Amino acid sequence: MKSAITISLVPEAKGGPFVFWEGLADGCARAAALGFGAVEIFPPAASAIDIAELQGLLDRHRLKVAAMGTGGGWLMHKWTLTHPDAAIRKKAREFIRAIVDVAGGFGAPAIIGSMQGRWEGKVTREQALSWLGDAVSDLGEHAASHGTVLLYEPLNRYETNLFNRQRDAAVWLRTLKNSNVRILADLFHMNIEEEDMASSLREVGALLGHVHFADSNRRAIGHGHTTVGPIMAALRQIGYAGYLSAEILPLPDSSTAAKRTIDSFRFYTA
Amino acid sequence: MKSAITISLVPEAKGGPFVFWEGLADGCARAAALGFGAVEIFPPAASAIDIAELQGLLDRHRLKVAAMGTGGGWLMHKWTLTHPDAAIRKKAREFIRAIVDVAGGFGAPAIIGSMQGRWEGKVTREQALSWLGDAVSDLGEHAASHGTVLLYEPLNRYETNLFNRQRDAAVWLRTLKNSNVRILADLFHMNIEEEDMASSLREVGALLGHVHFADSNRRAIGHGHTTVGPIMAALRQIGYAGYLSAEILPLPDSSTAAKRTIDSFRFYTA
Repeated sequence: MKSAITISLVPEAKGGPFVFWEGLADGCARAAALGFGAVEIFPPAASAIDIAELQGLLDRHRLKVAAMGTGGGWLMHKWTLTHPDAAIRKKAREFIRAIVDVAGGFGAPAIIGSMQGRWEGKVTREQALSWLGDAVSDLGEHAASHGTVLLYEPLNRYETNLFNRQRDAAVWLRTLKNSNVRILADLFHMNIEEEDMASSLREVGALLGHVHFADSNRRAIGHGHTTVGPIMAALRQIGYAGYLSAEILPLPDSSTAAKRTIDSFRFYTA
Repeated sequence: MKSAITISLVPEAKGGPFVFWEGLADGCARAAALGFGAVEIFPPAASAIDIAELQGLLDRHRLKVAAMGTGGGWLMHKWTLTHPDAAIRKKAREFIRAIVDVAGGFGAPAIIGSMQGRWEGKVTREQALSWLGDAVSDLGEHAASHGTVLLYEPLNRYETNLFNRQRDAAVWLRTLKNSNVRILADLFHMNIEEEDMASSLREVGALLGHVHFADSNRRAIGHGHTTVGPIMAALRQIGYAGYLSAEILPLPDSSTAAKRTIDSFRFYTA
């Protein structure tokens, strides 16, 4: 398994679960100094990524891009893939498609998290899932043209009412025509929703594409009460070889959160 | 420790964490049949409780009232104790005071949960805590006139930004002039917020007034991944003799959730 840590380029996301906040140059330098293998980037939009600058930083620091978030479209514009307004759904899809392109250029997947939205009002669950299924199939196919996958993240009950549990999301993804979508298992969300986190990961199996390595309170692993051993055993059992990416709060500060994460990563993957 | 189970009298709360939904007569009969010692009631307002009817049901079934929720004021009217508008704060306090009176008549405390609101916009955290402190001191004093306490419940980060952790709430309560407020420790919220649930309960100590007995996913204890043993040991260590009250989702249905709760209660308090 491989290590990654988050960089937010969105000042409006302050208070959110990202470790580094001072730009790509700062985040990449600090990630590399601690020995991380990759960075997960949260941009306000695809256009905010200076591709030449990022490539230079990755080369200099021998880093990879683990993934790119698309939640900027929700945070900045309140766009989602299941919005009742077709024009907004289109904007959401275009916003994500542009990030699929930028991330794809670095061999990395984009993440559908908060952009999935929720069903409510006049939108039925069936309708929302139909729109979401079309969108992730299409975006997954687009990711394939870059040789990457698309990541779909089940969120806890406070953040969506579409899929909260890994198993339910996996069953649904298997019904879609496009098979290029993988699950992002976020251990913070799972702590709230899963009966047994390790068994849930075993059920996701080969569909698992990315892991958010966060403790029960969204602090660095080791600073909440999640029992990590059985989770790591399940990941090894299903042959997971992807990233454990620290989408965590920068507490007590970014440096400490990052240091504790890499220490935990080394401990659990030794 | 004593057992209790929740009855909601608020159809608008459908989907919420209450076990019985078919009125006081139904809820009391089913609670008693399973061997619960008390019911925790969630009314839309104080006036919705028919005092003579409830007293009759309690006598017939040999039940007590464990507590009454006040969140109907938030759910039905969006009133809170920290609302920027003084007229709304006043309505919130009067709404709760009326429930303190009804609950107090049955020797039971009222609960301040969602009615605490949150700080945001032009309201600073200091301002919100000052309003909340005044309100809980006053309502606590009023509860004392009935020979009961007032319960304050820290909620998880998605439900308030005032106090999420038991220890922070306990430190704050100790600064208030009125000492008649106790903490309600909800194990579902604690699963999200506490580094170590058992230690947090030990820190609350004698301030603990009520426990919501819910697993990590708000289902009956035993149906999530919370490690209950150390929590029960901490409760015994601090001499807690109050209720373990099932504020849980009625899943897979009310009867099963109730049966599993009383079985878990007996197992852990045997």
